[in-house]
Amino acid sequence: MSFLYKADPVRGAQWAARFAQRAPDLPFRIWPDIGDAAAVRYLAAWQPPDDPAALLPNLEVVFSVGAGIDQFDLSRVPAHIPVVRMIEPGIVEGMVEYVTQAVLTIHRDLFDYAAQQREQVWHEKPVRAAASRRIGVLGLGTLGQAVLDTLRRFGFPCAGWSRTPRTLDGIDCYAGDAALDTFLARTDILICLLPLTDDTRGLLGARVFDALPAGASLVQVGRGPQLDAAALLAALASGRVDNAILDVTDPEPLPAGHPFWAHPRIRITPHIASATRPDTAVDAVLANLARHRAGQPMIGVVDRARGY
Amino acid sequence: MSFLYKADPVRGAQWAARFAQRAPDLPFRIWPDIGDAAAVRYLAAWQPPDDPAALLPNLEVVFSVGAGIDQFDLSRVPAHIPVVRMIEPGIVEGMVEYVTQAVLTIHRDLFDYAAQQREQVWHEKPVRAAASRRIGVLGLGTLGQAVLDTLRRFGFPCAGWSRTPRTLDGIDCYAGDAALDTFLARTDILICLLPLTDDTRGLLGARVFDALPAGASLVQVGRGPQLDAAALLAALASGRVDNAILDVTDPEPLPAGHPFWAHPRIRITPHIASATRPDTAVDAVLANLARHRAGQPMIGVVDRARGY
Repeated sequence: MSFLYKADPVRGAQWAARFAQRAPDLPFRIWPDIGDAAAVRYLAAWQPPDDPAALLPNLEVVFSVGAGIDQFDLSRVPAHIPVVRMIEPGIVEGMVEYVTQAVLTIHRDLFDYAAQQREQVWHEKPVRAAASRRIGVLGLGTLGQAVLDTLRRFGFPCAGWSRTPRTLDGIDCYAGDAALDTFLARTDILICLLPLTDDTRGLLGARVFDALPAGASLVQVGRGPQLDAAALLAALASGRVDNAILDVTDPEPLPAGHPFWAHPRIRITPHIASATRPDTAVDAVLANLARHRAGQPMIGVVDRARGY
Repeated sequence: MSFLYKADPVRGAQWAARFAQRAPDLPFRIWPDIGDAAAVRYLAAWQPPDDPAALLPNLEVVFSVGAGIDQFDLSRVPAHIPVVRMIEPGIVEGMVEYVTQAVLTIHRDLFDYAAQQREQVWHEKPVRAAASRRIGVLGLGTLGQAVLDTLRRFGFPCAGWSRTPRTLDGIDCYAGDAALDTFLARTDILICLLPLTDDTRGLLGARVFDALPAGASLVQVGRGPQLDAAALLAALASGRVDNAILDVTDPEPLPAGHPFWAHPRIRITPHIASATRPDTAVDAVLANLARHRAGQPMIGVVDRARGY
């Protein structure tokens, strides 16, 4: 019985070290050195091999090494093999840090102060109370909930929107297409933490921007193809959107010369909001394996009908 | 009996509106329209008039409209008149927001990512765990404590240093000159929230920078004259200090052409980390007046020997 890792090999070596400590009896192999293919029961991958069931006849579980599985072609993984998203404390911590920094950057006018520094101008703007800045999070999974739980401690009025209804302490929860416009109309800083699905591709476009209050801001930490680049540039030009902080783009890497790079009201980071951390990720995978072997449900199993 | 306000007149009008709501029986006057000088019992000022006791013979209390009183010439206020610093929730909220944003900006490498964006380069840096980034706060008053209480929730190891010993939940507390070097040696991000006194003038200089680990960062939200500008530039040049976020400078406004403005590892904001908010400030002043009238100690009375 073995565990096969198929993703960035530098991180793979870190996974191997952690496995050696925590699960010394489970042989750990790094792609393409798969050893006896029939022995591979578990696969952790950014992208699975083309035909995993044919290559690995005894495969029982596929783990994504990322929080999302949109990079997977799920049709290639037979339906009886569960696919598990990565839900681990390292990913949550990184996302909470990134989004908090982004929201405070917008709230405290640091786009404007950066421009003033370039011009060597010292000019105070009035400080707005957190109570007057309304935060809205699209997507209320583990990451969205953790982000909201941190932001509400700063005194921001917080709301969230999800496909299916949720109830969260201290958060105004909206659900479904019918409630989207109402949610957007009360949102000054919109944070996207949705998974990439057919429903969310291109969602951040003119319809969403037009439903926001004038001068709203966007923090995009979902997936690049959710954002309509031309619509964002138009919304920035009209003032409908005041500024945008983008950690994901389409394509990635964002090519040099793309208009986002040099836009004074756009901040780009190279998909670093949150990364699986080898130590906590391995621990989360091993905890799920223990559940699987005990016949208990694993945490983060993908619902193939929803696509996440 | 009247209350006299001597500071920014735009904010003065906001104070007047709040006083009219909350203390309609106490006449509120805005400098220089002082009315009957003998009626003035209370003064709120950024800087008191030259000889307040001669001008206002029945003055009982002087309130600073700012968190610090270093801009006051205390020798001009007779010793029997208490001087009260501004401690109010609006100041605390603003400072917690500013410092959290600054710490996360440093922790998440946003100086580097801003440089990459200017060059249109997409390159990930490894994400460091919060547990590996040690925060140290100089000054453990109301603001320092509030900042530490927020930062420790992110998982940063947190310490504080103060002139006199303190004990704070979850914070490693250091006190006095003898402990300063030990505190600095374990600090990756140094936050200065000290008052300006003879002891702290020029404190952020070569001795402090040399005691920090190589590649440490500075967040300066105290007072401008605490920082030795030449020493900071030298520490940045040598790599002893990696970057600095400065909200206060000497002088203010920072003149155009000062080397801080164009330095790629320095961020300047124009003393906006935290501002007294008229609504919460008036409420704090009125609560202190009620204590004063009831013969109870007011919150924030300045110890003239310490100078804060």
